Amino acid sequence: MSRIDTRLAELGLVLPEPLKLPPGVTLPFPWVSTRGNRVYISGHGPVDADGSLSEPRGKVGADVTPEQAKELAGKVALTILSSLRDELGDLDRITGWCKILGMVNSAPGFNNQPEVINGFTDIILDVFGPEVGRHTRSAVGLAELPFDIAVEIEGEVEISL
Amino acid sequence: MSRIDTRLAELGLVLPEPLKLPPGVTLPFPWVSTRGNRVYISGHGPVDADGSLSEPRGKVGADVTPEQAKELAGKVALTILSSLRDELGDLDRITGWCKILGMVNSAPGFNNQPEVINGFTDIILDVFGPEVGRHTRSAVGLAELPFDIAVEIEGEVEISL
Amino acid sequence: MSRIDTRLAELGLVLPEPLKLPPGVTLPFPWVSTRGNRVYISGHGPVDADGSLSEPRGKVGADVTPEQAKELAGKVALTILSSLRDELGDLDRITGWCKILGMVNSAPGFNNQPEVINGFTDIILDVFGPEVGRHTRSAVGLAELPFDIAVEIEGEVEISL
Repeated sequence: MSRIDTRLAELGLVLPEPLKLPPGVTLPFPWVSTRGNRVYISGHGPVDADGSLSEPRGKVGADVTPEQAKELAGKVALTILSSLRDELGDLDRITGWCKILGMVNSAPGFNNQPEVINGFTDIILDVFGPEVGRHTRSAVGLAELPFDIAVEIEGEVEISL
Repeated sequence: MSRIDTRLAELGLVLPEPLKLPPGVTLPFPWVSTRGNRVYISGHGPVDADGSLSEPRGKVGADVTPEQAKELAGKVALTILSSLRDELGDLDRITGWCKILGMVNSAPGFNNQPEVINGFTDIILDVFGPEVGRHTRSAVGLAELPFDIAVEIEGEVEISL
Repeated sequence: MSRIDTRLAELGLVLPEPLKLPPGVTLPFPWVSTRGNRVYISGHGPVDADGSLSEPRGKVGADVTPEQAKELAGKVALTILSSLRDELGDLDRITGWCKILGMVNSAPGFNNQPEVINGFTDIILDVFGPEVGRHTRSAVGLAELPFDIAVEIEGEVEISL
């Protein structure tokens, strides 16, 4: 078993099935894509173990509490790791997280996006450790997100060739 | 004629003139810029053949229909290809699309940004094919965009040196 | 003294202390992080000389005037340069600015984000000159920003190894 898979098991983290899209939706792009020694990560929402979009949806600070949103950001981390493992075969190939953009579907006046996105960052650091896992980021409030999901995160990682 | 120029002609696609800025606007940055084997692409709006900003403008879901917005996203693709050809001389130098960020000026409650940005992705895939053209992306709802344009897209491509 | 430090002194620009976070806020990520020959820059807000978050805060076009916001974007430039100097030791190591994303906390109807972000771009070009300093960018309107800051900017630069 790979080092990262072992670590996921130690932490009791299980990666979800790939996203099941809402009926009628076509997404003509890959969830992750490798160019040279960089893997680019499309904006991911949170999914449950079976690949269905996680609830609750809506605006953080109104329909979704900050605590729920932080938990959803953690699910986004697992969703992204699932996509990366499908692409790379082995998550040990990741030599460094580069950056992420954390987008929070924000109700007027909600401005603690960083604490929400910490739900993502905490898991990445737990799984990969501080050297490989460290990443720069922005955590900001979007007006609307697709399918009214509460959190969406995109990013970029470095791999060994 | 280059391979990509031939393909554009086959598809009946004509790249527009460079953007004519609204009077009094100064933009002290390049539309695209090369660093190493990456070309970075500034946020582009849609322009017509003569380089003027395309209509309609405003919020998708209120002032602009989703169908109009998808068509505008296609115009953004052509605008970006025009900027890339100015920079590179020959679009055949592009070895891979990396990522794009699709920003939709969204009315409250509009959350089908992915279908809008498919207007961009469909053209890139038609022109470059699935291997060179594939790109990761986010398609999200912004509160406001410059000059009230409906769609803005930025991105990054890989080139051969 | 390094070339860039000399230039900063010529321009009368002083880099601020690192950001003092609001009480109780934990940010488990670096302000900038190097991977290969790229340095990734987290979303930075404007800070004063002592590292405290700059005022005014709030939405540009309502609580904050466009002129104030442009000045705040200039402070973001200095804040980012301070983070980069902490990481790199010497700002002369920067061989090229790649891209930035300029995020403006925008009141409904405010859509001159480019002029606000020119406050950032003008300083980078003054300090680094047109070849090293040129960068692509988007300047867009966010619904909400952390701690209700008016302007946040993230980016990427290239360094010599």
